[in-house]
Amino acid sequence: MGSPASMSSREGGNLLRPGTGLKETPASAGDQVRADFPGLLTADGQPWHYLDTAATAQKPRQVIDAMSRALGEDYATVHRGVYSRSANMTLGFEAARKRVAKFIGAESEDEIVFVRGATEGINLVAQSWGQANVGEGDRIMLSQLEHHSNIVPWQMLAEGVGAEIDVCPLTEDGLIDLDWLEANLTKRHKMVALAHVSNVLGSILGAKRAARAAHAVGAKLLLDGCQSAPRMRLDMAELGCDFFVFSGHKLYGPTGIGVLWARGEILDEMPPWQGGGAMIDTVDFGGTTYAPAPQRFEAGTPMITEAIALHAAVDYTEAFGMENLFAHEARLVRKAREALSHFNSIRLLGPEKSAGILSFAMEGVHPHDLGTILDEENVAIRAGHHCAQPLMEHLGVPATARASFGLYSDESDVEALVRGIERTQKIFA
Amino acid sequence: MGSPASMSSREGGNLLRPGTGLKETPASAGDQVRADFPGLLTADGQPWHYLDTAATAQKPRQVIDAMSRALGEDYATVHRGVYSRSANMTLGFEAARKRVAKFIGAESEDEIVFVRGATEGINLVAQSWGQANVGEGDRIMLSQLEHHSNIVPWQMLAEGVGAEIDVCPLTEDGLIDLDWLEANLTKRHKMVALAHVSNVLGSILGAKRAARAAHAVGAKLLLDGCQSAPRMRLDMAELGCDFFVFSGHKLYGPTGIGVLWARGEILDEMPPWQGGGAMIDTVDFGGTTYAPAPQRFEAGTPMITEAIALHAAVDYTEAFGMENLFAHEARLVRKAREALSHFNSIRLLGPEKSAGILSFAMEGVHPHDLGTILDEENVAIRAGHHCAQPLMEHLGVPATARASFGLYSDESDVEALVRGIERTQKIFA
Repeated sequence: MGSPASMSSREGGNLLRPGTGLKETPASAGDQVRADFPGLLTADGQPWHYLDTAATAQKPRQVIDAMSRALGEDYATVHRGVYSRSANMTLGFEAARKRVAKFIGAESEDEIVFVRGATEGINLVAQSWGQANVGEGDRIMLSQLEHHSNIVPWQMLAEGVGAEIDVCPLTEDGLIDLDWLEANLTKRHKMVALAHVSNVLGSILGAKRAARAAHAVGAKLLLDGCQSAPRMRLDMAELGCDFFVFSGHKLYGPTGIGVLWARGEILDEMPPWQGGGAMIDTVDFGGTTYAPAPQRFEAGTPMITEAIALHAAVDYTEAFGMENLFAHEARLVRKAREALSHFNSIRLLGPEKSAGILSFAMEGVHPHDLGTILDEENVAIRAGHHCAQPLMEHLGVPATARASFGLYSDESDVEALVRGIERTQKIFA
Repeated sequence: MGSPASMSSREGGNLLRPGTGLKETPASAGDQVRADFPGLLTADGQPWHYLDTAATAQKPRQVIDAMSRALGEDYATVHRGVYSRSANMTLGFEAARKRVAKFIGAESEDEIVFVRGATEGINLVAQSWGQANVGEGDRIMLSQLEHHSNIVPWQMLAEGVGAEIDVCPLTEDGLIDLDWLEANLTKRHKMVALAHVSNVLGSILGAKRAARAAHAVGAKLLLDGCQSAPRMRLDMAELGCDFFVFSGHKLYGPTGIGVLWARGEILDEMPPWQGGGAMIDTVDFGGTTYAPAPQRFEAGTPMITEAIALHAAVDYTEAFGMENLFAHEARLVRKAREALSHFNSIRLLGPEKSAGILSFAMEGVHPHDLGTILDEENVAIRAGHHCAQPLMEHLGVPATARASFGLYSDESDVEALVRGIERTQKIFA
């Protein structure tokens, strides 16, 4: 389902194929992939240099077509209908769950809960697992670079149960400081919740080490995988985490769907969070019994067509090879860092080795102004606090400019960014 | 956005236009509307008699196209981007909120919270408003015909805070018994939560009277509008309820989105439920402040493209005239009741006056078997407990067969249903 029609030709001249890097064939290979993405053209048909993939990814035609078919000729509800189209739709919906399980190396599709997005996934863990397992005087370990979605749910939990939050500081180059983490975790810590890849700096967490540190004190590790799922090969067993969340729309899939993975034995023990149809076994005014996981956490009609389109998105993305994708974006970050390092006015933020994301500050130019000028040049960057206000405080800036790459990005995007910055410099000179 | 291209011609010969009912022009008018719905054909291009619209509605091409555009050439994130396409997407997203507000006669679009579906809407009210306003010894009034989604969230709340649930019985013809309700509501009741239209029987609640009764004891009224929103003209002020929820996918819109409406002054007072980006004002490890409603209840990247497609669905549906739509479906129910009343083996359930939904039982034939045989005739009905097990108990059946109509239904669907039942009768004779 949704396997790209152009995949075989792409495999022949793939910009991400090992040995035939973009360096050699920038325009043609990039164009070939871009042709799959109707969103990568401006309204008047010009190339759009979209450098905001960390906020949300553009969708390939294969995903859009899967959505159209699912809403159209294939449409029916799931899990309930006695007619054949509903049975087929149920197969398609559950095939998406299996596909996601395989994509992240889960042990079983029963470990996959479809949620609205990563934010809801973290809230589900904080409210269901958290209410049952975190009590007064317990502690939750976060880090200075977390996205608000991995801060606020824990603050709400901590406030409710009387727990405390600790904040792991960063190393000088913007990594979560695992030395500090190891030295400061205690038996009171029940949860360690960290970004696998920072949405602002692209910093990559030493996830296995974080997992060992958490488990050494009996804590669980939750990884916010929003930025790693679209960029890194994932294997839950290898990572060693207990919970993993990501959003479909950042993985070239639709909005309105995301994934919570939790280790089977943990998920099985978690109490239900939202009540409704499909998540129950029997309902009686004398008492209700709940279905096993993952259905227990999927009350109501699910995101049927979104799951099917997410399946197509996983197929599309993984066909590039996740390691190739990572290397491709890392190379573009290096190229951008190199180019921007020639501007005296620019301060590069975050580590050299970044997963497809680069933040920077420009002296005397507010990131919003830079973003607005770049927009006139058909270059889209993100400017702001990126839902990471505590990190802004750490960096000593109110906001950053952020360029983030995707599988469709290429050198021309970096060049357009540089041209736009040159123009901005002239305007503000 | 998404206004049907064929609407002007449909207005010329509309099957739902007053004075030119289907009775006069069954085939042509029905075909004209059906042509908008790719889902109404079988895989081999035959007409599909889809009588499961109460479970989920088929989508018109206008909705599917709106979704494709939003995922394609228009795609960007909302509320955050400094580039123009993101600003446009934000306008589109917020226009959807305005359109929904107008559709249900809300006072302001700030009363509209986008949720995943009606189920999530009820859970949000139960957990946010409920935790803050329902305490030990308080009571919650439900009815015998509620959908599980309007039972389980209240059971979970009641269990958590030590409140009690009361169940309003039904009249003989399957209506919520408002005499009983008025006689049994007390000052301890904080919430009355009722289906506006029963998903099994099509029974229509006397909503204004229920609101007066609830308010007379100081309780709030929540209406589950899943089955009324696609079938009735709605005006929140006129209804007098305090909360109203419905799902997009039952209103000819996409999956993954629904609406919670709450009276402004109530919504403003409700504490946040899920934490994350977009729902905050500032985040600091010392403390977080929250955005005003409705953003406070929309943590994370919202259902962007779903909201835009829902806008198209509301435009499409309302263009028929909601009163016409109601009359159209009521007429089909009457016709079906009349036709089925000639079968000695069939027991019709629910009131004569039903909003587009008809449940029945067939002696000696399990509804699932009936559904399977009908499926062979390209007729799709729903068989089961319809996520309303307490109602099944009341009716004294484990399951019912349910035929439900939509704006694309016509006499040919009723005739196909009758033919299928005749065949079933022969098979089981």
